[in-house]
Amino acid sequence: MTAPRFERAAIIGIGLIGSSLARVLRRDDLAGTIVACTRRAETLETARGLRIADAYTLDPAEAARGADLVVVAAPHSAYAEIGARIGPVLAPGAILTDVGSVKGAALRDLQPIVPPGVHFIPGHPVAGTEHSGPAAGFAEMFDGRWCILTPPAGSDAVALQRLTGMWESAGMKVVIMDAAHHDLVLAITSHLPHLIAYTIVGTAIDLEDTLKSEVIKFSAGGFRDFTRIAASDPVMWRDVFLSNREAVLAMLQRFTEDLTALQRAIRWGEGDKLEELFTRTRAIRRSIIEANQA
Amino acid sequence: MTAPRFERAAIIGIGLIGSSLARVLRRDDLAGTIVACTRRAETLETARGLRIADAYTLDPAEAARGADLVVVAAPHSAYAEIGARIGPVLAPGAILTDVGSVKGAALRDLQPIVPPGVHFIPGHPVAGTEHSGPAAGFAEMFDGRWCILTPPAGSDAVALQRLTGMWESAGMKVVIMDAAHHDLVLAITSHLPHLIAYTIVGTAIDLEDTLKSEVIKFSAGGFRDFTRIAASDPVMWRDVFLSNREAVLAMLQRFTEDLTALQRAIRWGEGDKLEELFTRTRAIRRSIIEANQA
Repeated sequence: MTAPRFERAAIIGIGLIGSSLARVLRRDDLAGTIVACTRRAETLETARGLRIADAYTLDPAEAARGADLVVVAAPHSAYAEIGARIGPVLAPGAILTDVGSVKGAALRDLQPIVPPGVHFIPGHPVAGTEHSGPAAGFAEMFDGRWCILTPPAGSDAVALQRLTGMWESAGMKVVIMDAAHHDLVLAITSHLPHLIAYTIVGTAIDLEDTLKSEVIKFSAGGFRDFTRIAASDPVMWRDVFLSNREAVLAMLQRFTEDLTALQRAIRWGEGDKLEELFTRTRAIRRSIIEANQA
Repeated sequence: MTAPRFERAAIIGIGLIGSSLARVLRRDDLAGTIVACTRRAETLETARGLRIADAYTLDPAEAARGADLVVVAAPHSAYAEIGARIGPVLAPGAILTDVGSVKGAALRDLQPIVPPGVHFIPGHPVAGTEHSGPAAGFAEMFDGRWCILTPPAGSDAVALQRLTGMWESAGMKVVIMDAAHHDLVLAITSHLPHLIAYTIVGTAIDLEDTLKSEVIKFSAGGFRDFTRIAASDPVMWRDVFLSNREAVLAMLQRFTEDLTALQRAIRWGEGDKLEELFTRTRAIRRSIIEANQA
């Protein structure tokens, strides 16, 4: 698909994802003007220093005015306020999208402010690192990864095609999904893993001091991988768990049942049950390698 | 420390760790003769094809006879039987060690068979990958990692020095620790992370088929890291959990309490509690990077 060119692309929230997308727009010449907008003056100055955009503002309305592409790339808790600011200035024909991890929350917070003639298509580029802020972004971050778009019923086909073209230009494989289904899939592939990683690292933090220093020293045994995940942006992830509460709690309930069963097998020395599970989980890794996602 | 030279080094169990050590002994000319021993004929043929050793046998007694270094590198469930076989042939002055993840179990299973004059010093090189078998090993696997030795009270200083020299030659940083303390530290840094990874991957396997294929497809969001850990050797890990039961159950209890507290915070929308924890866990990652273990 030919990559689209936008006249004015406003990116509201210029952290890891927003700044990486700005770099893609610049690299691939996808926008005449790139406008970076963020809540904190300090972050905006960092973005300015990185020359990520053509214009910089702390005001979402100023960023969105006259834009034919508006990308909300802020934590979910900021969506409602951003929506209230940009709603009145969005021009007919503009595309409004986002990059948030919970599509139900994006619909809930942004759909009500979308004026007639504006094309609202929520999106989620499934990519990232444990780092945050505009300096952590890089254009190649999206390469080879999936981007899930959740267009509401009756979405404009041309707008969807343009948005798809932008993410494909970033190197992503774009799929269309129902918003509620997206939130369920991500609850198990992303939200629950993060919750568990945060928990176990927290458990280690609360250990007696003599043990704690050794946990850091000997982290290579498996713990280290969890600390990387548990270093992800605290505010973004707080919002993810609160925004996708029902799906996360449902998956957490299943996980807890399974963990309790394993705990019982360990207590009673049921080695066959352990080995049987561990053999099955090993096979899944092979599927992921074959699916080229490792 | 000058690396020691052994006349005859017997490695009993020639999987990921055992075969990697054999490669180190060969690379650094640490042994006159390297003997590879394993339970399964097929594995032994693989090792032979890789030219990992100088001699090959299915009989632990034959491997250990005349050896001045015997390294048990088999799953914990095989220790007692290996001990019964090699005990009668171990020669005075020989060093007996192992590479298992649970030092209490090594002491329990091997200490009783150690003849007078044989130096038994359990060890644990904290290194590895999710792959197993002799073909998966490589000499560089130990480089820069920790090796924990747990010499019983009254251990021979020269034997300890020789064993330390061997692991240092492999590139490891050697530390001495009490066996019970080792098992507690590893319960949180390694055993619990593996148990949790196995559990969540198992939870995903049991999902409805429509969801399951998407879990594989979108695994890059965090789940993928868990599948790598949950691809580790099933028999070895079954034995670890059964052998370090008390410490694993104790750490699991703490983890479950912490997870339940987070679950409650999500259910009741207590964002401040989530953010506070996520901010603290991020700091631990920094400690690990500073400790050069990332």
